Amino acid sequence: MTPPTAPASTSATAPEDRYARGLAALSLVTGTEHPAVLDPIAEIAPDLARFTVEFGYGDIWSQPGLTPRQRQIGTIAALAALGNAAPQLRFHIAGALNVGCTRREITETFIHATVYAGYPAALNALAAAREVFAAHPDPDAAAPATEKTPEADRYARGIALLQEVDGPAGPHVVDSLADLAPDLGRFLVEHVFGEVYARTGLDLPTRELASVAMCTALGTAGPQLRVHLRAFLNVGGTREEIIALLTQLAGYAGFPAALNGVAAAREIFAEQDAKG
Amino acid sequence: MTPPTAPASTSATAPEDRYARGLAALSLVTGTEHPAVLDPIAEIAPDLARFTVEFGYGDIWSQPGLTPRQRQIGTIAALAALGNAAPQLRFHIAGALNVGCTRREITETFIHATVYAGYPAALNALAAAREVFAAHPDPDAAAPATEKTPEADRYARGIALLQEVDGPAGPHVVDSLADLAPDLGRFLVEHVFGEVYARTGLDLPTRELASVAMCTALGTAGPQLRVHLRAFLNVGGTREEIIALLTQLAGYAGFPAALNGVAAAREIFAEQDAKG
Amino acid sequence: MTPPTAPASTSATAPEDRYARGLAALSLVTGTEHPAVLDPIAEIAPDLARFTVEFGYGDIWSQPGLTPRQRQIGTIAALAALGNAAPQLRFHIAGALNVGCTRREITETFIHATVYAGYPAALNALAAAREVFAAHPDPDAAAPATEKTPEADRYARGIALLQEVDGPAGPHVVDSLADLAPDLGRFLVEHVFGEVYARTGLDLPTRELASVAMCTALGTAGPQLRVHLRAFLNVGGTREEIIALLTQLAGYAGFPAALNGVAAAREIFAEQDAKG
Repeated sequence: MTPPTAPASTSATAPEDRYARGLAALSLVTGTEHPAVLDPIAEIAPDLARFTVEFGYGDIWSQPGLTPRQRQIGTIAALAALGNAAPQLRFHIAGALNVGCTRREITETFIHATVYAGYPAALNALAAAREVFAAHPDPDAAAPATEKTPEADRYARGIALLQEVDGPAGPHVVDSLADLAPDLGRFLVEHVFGEVYARTGLDLPTRELASVAMCTALGTAGPQLRVHLRAFLNVGGTREEIIALLTQLAGYAGFPAALNGVAAAREIFAEQDAKG
Repeated sequence: MTPPTAPASTSATAPEDRYARGLAALSLVTGTEHPAVLDPIAEIAPDLARFTVEFGYGDIWSQPGLTPRQRQIGTIAALAALGNAAPQLRFHIAGALNVGCTRREITETFIHATVYAGYPAALNALAAAREVFAAHPDPDAAAPATEKTPEADRYARGIALLQEVDGPAGPHVVDSLADLAPDLGRFLVEHVFGEVYARTGLDLPTRELASVAMCTALGTAGPQLRVHLRAFLNVGGTREEIIALLTQLAGYAGFPAALNGVAAAREIFAEQDAKG
Repeated sequence: MTPPTAPASTSATAPEDRYARGLAALSLVTGTEHPAVLDPIAEIAPDLARFTVEFGYGDIWSQPGLTPRQRQIGTIAALAALGNAAPQLRFHIAGALNVGCTRREITETFIHATVYAGYPAALNALAAAREVFAAHPDPDAAAPATEKTPEADRYARGIALLQEVDGPAGPHVVDSLADLAPDLGRFLVEHVFGEVYARTGLDLPTRELASVAMCTALGTAGPQLRVHLRAFLNVGGTREEIIALLTQLAGYAGFPAALNGVAAAREIFAEQDAKG
């Protein structure tokens, strides 16, 4: 029988003052000392406003394991993929800017989202970013970058990146498509890896953090979630970061999504332990 | 070979007059004798407007098995979780008020939705409720309730509720997270059960009806759907209510979601029959 | 080891001039020589605007395997089911008109969508169609059709159509519901097949193309995707059309949805090969 006492927390935060701690975290994200974003909610459900601060920011966001920039990239990736939370997406794009993400990192995250959630979801996220950027004028912001990879070597570059990110499993996926859907396999190499992953402006670990966040939030991409959990570890991510990200997603995509993500992570960690 | 005759219906309603029966049900939901909500649809697709009345209200909504209040709570829970049907969510929040649900039950359903669909989906549903409440002034409505559970015993209270709702399987889920994602397990106990499930304002069977509706509509929460089918039965729900709810969700989330829900229910019922 | 050269393409299009080819395809969809739809995107992410043209239209849309009308019906079906991409849904409804789909085919696709994605998603898609039709006045457009199947023989007609579309597996699904959810089975026969599939205005292969597109895009309807892959082949669709459709959905619903669709198609093709 489970004893009615909480297990030792891996979190550095104390259980007291969840509200004060949450408000401090929320202030970092909003860039204001007295965030008013929850006032309309508090009008008809004051406890939901309080839970958002205490649980969303005091419990989850304040945990160690991820930097504020990683948290915001993971959040905007997940919300872009879900595609049904426009107000929160705009809020967290502004939050990403407030914790130090660049405009480039934000737009690259949404270009990356085309791969996992499709172009419509990505284009709508980009439109949200455009609104937020317009509302937060920044004379120091770099002009939008363009980066064109030469057509001729897209396939070779794509295969090389696919192997760097996914290991031998990457080219294996492409091979397995060769008989049935060769163009889909070719697009995966030429476009996804040869053009999207090849872009600078978002380093590979952050790219894979976004991939894991999107596959977890969608909940419909089980095989791909497993591929990208492995890939995130391949390019330098840690198990601690994965667990912190999945825990955060309980707040943004619900506990079922987070729990199913942890079950996938458990499989991948065991597989890697077995390899030694 | 299946003979081309309909099986004996479990429904008390006759096959004739589906339109008249549907219109009567729709009138209960809209609170008006001549609902005009489908007029814009009828302009370009008159048969879709007719199907909505005949199938949505004449076939599904008029079935026995659930009370009108249960139907509306299940519907707003499912639409909140889907997060992509704002006009219908507002319509059915008003419908919930019209069939006798209280504002408190509606806001509690959406606080409960944070657990299954995440905070963004729940906050957007709450914002929809705020609009509907403002458009339906009610001088007798109770002021928004606040309910703060003491910090100190959240874990103990959560474990007790987890056992009441899920039986021994509940604490087992938490134990299984202890090695890999202990904070996620702790949040599940302290926040989900110790704070959300502990709230009054929505009784446990209605809470679990909403959980089943959300997991079914999402379609990405298979293991959790099974947990909450068991939980709904544990806290006093019936198999008949489950089947009526899943059948209703064919209209709101599509037949695949409903059929996959019935497949899960079949497993759980068989498992319980085997236990005797 | 996979050599770093692209496999022979099944596509008739050359790798050069993806942008020019994409722009030509996009012009067919928009009905204008110089489409401006991507200008706002180009302001903050010029490469995403370019990818949309090069990859979305130059690579995917320009492939052989589907007619423009099939591509647009598949796209609006998928976007209706996803329910979170209203601007793109409106754009592609207009695109469907521009490549020669009739208003009737578009509204029938959304009536068909009630079955797979539920009434709210379908009603919202219909509302989008209403806006687009109003913005594209067409004095030659037929008045909205109505078609009422007699109540009395809905069950017999439904069973006959279910067998035509799904083969013996169709009635088997209904039989398997008889013990647990007989009304859901009856609604599937009487309403889905006896009323929706029985409608003229969308031929059966196009109906099943839309079913496959929706189940793939949703990503939560694995068993139903398999049923409808078989059904599409039963009513005259080809494997080549299936692969072209799934490849197209990589652009609209993301690569995970497309890859999981190809895995399902592989199973169904193998099953049919084994039958000889």
